[in-house]
Amino acid sequence: MSYRILSGFRPTGKIHLGNIFGALQNWKKLQEHNQCFFEIADYHALTTNYDKTENLKDDILNIAADWLAFGLDPKKAVIFVQSDVRNHVELFTLLSMITPLPLLERNPTLKEQLKDLNIRTIHYGHLGYPVLQAADILIYRSTAVPVGEDQLPHIELTREIARRFNNLYGETFPEPKALLTSFPRVPGPDGKRMSKSLNNTILLNEKPGDIQKKVKQAFTDPQKIRKNDKGHPDKCVVFSYHKIFNPENVEQKKTECKEGTIGCVDCKAECSSIMAAYLEPYRKKREALQKNEGFVRDVLREGAQKAREETNKTMEQIRSHMKLWV
Amino acid sequence: MSYRILSGFRPTGKIHLGNIFGALQNWKKLQEHNQCFFEIADYHALTTNYDKTENLKDDILNIAADWLAFGLDPKKAVIFVQSDVRNHVELFTLLSMITPLPLLERNPTLKEQLKDLNIRTIHYGHLGYPVLQAADILIYRSTAVPVGEDQLPHIELTREIARRFNNLYGETFPEPKALLTSFPRVPGPDGKRMSKSLNNTILLNEKPGDIQKKVKQAFTDPQKIRKNDKGHPDKCVVFSYHKIFNPENVEQKKTECKEGTIGCVDCKAECSSIMAAYLEPYRKKREALQKNEGFVRDVLREGAQKAREETNKTMEQIRSHMKLWV
Repeated sequence: MSYRILSGFRPTGKIHLGNIFGALQNWKKLQEHNQCFFEIADYHALTTNYDKTENLKDDILNIAADWLAFGLDPKKAVIFVQSDVRNHVELFTLLSMITPLPLLERNPTLKEQLKDLNIRTIHYGHLGYPVLQAADILIYRSTAVPVGEDQLPHIELTREIARRFNNLYGETFPEPKALLTSFPRVPGPDGKRMSKSLNNTILLNEKPGDIQKKVKQAFTDPQKIRKNDKGHPDKCVVFSYHKIFNPENVEQKKTECKEGTIGCVDCKAECSSIMAAYLEPYRKKREALQKNEGFVRDVLREGAQKAREETNKTMEQIRSHMKLWV
Repeated sequence: MSYRILSGFRPTGKIHLGNIFGALQNWKKLQEHNQCFFEIADYHALTTNYDKTENLKDDILNIAADWLAFGLDPKKAVIFVQSDVRNHVELFTLLSMITPLPLLERNPTLKEQLKDLNIRTIHYGHLGYPVLQAADILIYRSTAVPVGEDQLPHIELTREIARRFNNLYGETFPEPKALLTSFPRVPGPDGKRMSKSLNNTILLNEKPGDIQKKVKQAFTDPQKIRKNDKGHPDKCVVFSYHKIFNPENVEQKKTECKEGTIGCVDCKAECSSIMAAYLEPYRKKREALQKNEGFVRDVLREGAQKAREETNKTMEQIRSHMKLWV
């Protein structure tokens, strides 16, 4: 079965391993047999970063280049910048009118975000980001959205808004299905969730030398101090890298670690080489794209054009169903 | 001094005497020496009437025809429908990001509205209508907004949002000034505020016979029962109509009433004739426009075109100052 799919990233930093395994690898598969819309969500970036727009344009170009380098394919999927398709904000405004405030006030993700980012005063647009997200999804008449478990409440909210709209104005939107994908969690070298804000990322275009440095400092079993100490691989970040990037040899690494026949220094060196080899083709492609900004811009321009055509169709239906002026 | 002015009505009913004296008479003067933008605020109508869009298009055409019949002049002012100018919702979305939620939560007008309309669940867009209003005003780089005393908090909020924007992204919007105009309050025949929701209006195109009927039922001094009873004009709705529509003879009417030389029946008949005479030219013009919907549509189309040109200029500045993608 083939879906219409919308997914996106906020342009707030370069693509790293967490993004690759958390989303991009899945997207690359999805674009093969589905109609995919991949959005660089610059309006969403403003919900928390409205006062940091200095590098917004560069961030957008970087994300786009990272996506293309990794293999998102403009011949298969529509890749575009949200603010380039004005219909998103029109639907956002319309959906705002039918979204009960309590639905947004009890959004658990928002509460976490406020705590994480130490935000004292919430802004109106920030409170409403799930409505903007619903508009993003529904304006493509999406039938599915790939999500992690933590984003399920968002999709539920989108489905609820779609149902409300359909009940009020007649069948307009499919209720998008959550495509739950399980994926390996790639921790940062410090063992925490890999995230730009925690400054513990390994980037898509990280240089081999830098990968080596970062893996060298990675968190390992604190009880394995000398080379021949017996280790506990399940407590070791480097072992979790082996699981992901070195699946053929992971059992062997486990045994070596547990029996103390390999030391952390060698284990890390081997691991970082394998990770560097995994990233190498993307890094090279990324480097080539860096020199060809015109191509990246063309992709985004053409993507926006297609996205506008698609969303114009939806807006026409919406206006007719709501009996709006134009 | 000449201003750039934005003002508007929600298309939720036909124009009545309360609107004429509360706004339109003032607008008709303002359009002579200022650059005026008069907006039919259909998005705003959705904040409370999202589930009653059945007649929205007719309501818009009716308001426009009423405005034109009363003398708003498309050669002098830009007359348009809000949803026809998409830049409004884009600026709404952008301003949402910088508007602290508490500013909206303590909006006293909203609280009154919820009580008046018996609204139990507030919707996200309803909470944010002052942000949409700020977008309406600021997108024309308005320097002044004509308001009644009760709307002063809204203008203050618009000014605050403008200041926040200018501080964050550089000088972009003038802080619009409130043009406080005092105007006679026209009560409904029942003595309450004239309002569609109270079902006590006298319309711009009310027929003379209907005016007569409505004035006949008007609330008068309850102590003046017989023709020769001495009345208290200050307690009488009809007297307040004399003050507005019959200023030349108002002192004489006062004396006649107080001395009991005129009865309410005659007084009402005289009053309703004068009111009908006042409205007659507007009613006729309105009737002619009723037969010429094409003209009304042309006015709105051309108005929207001009409004788009004006707001495109502002959006260009906004995007450049915010350093947005396009």
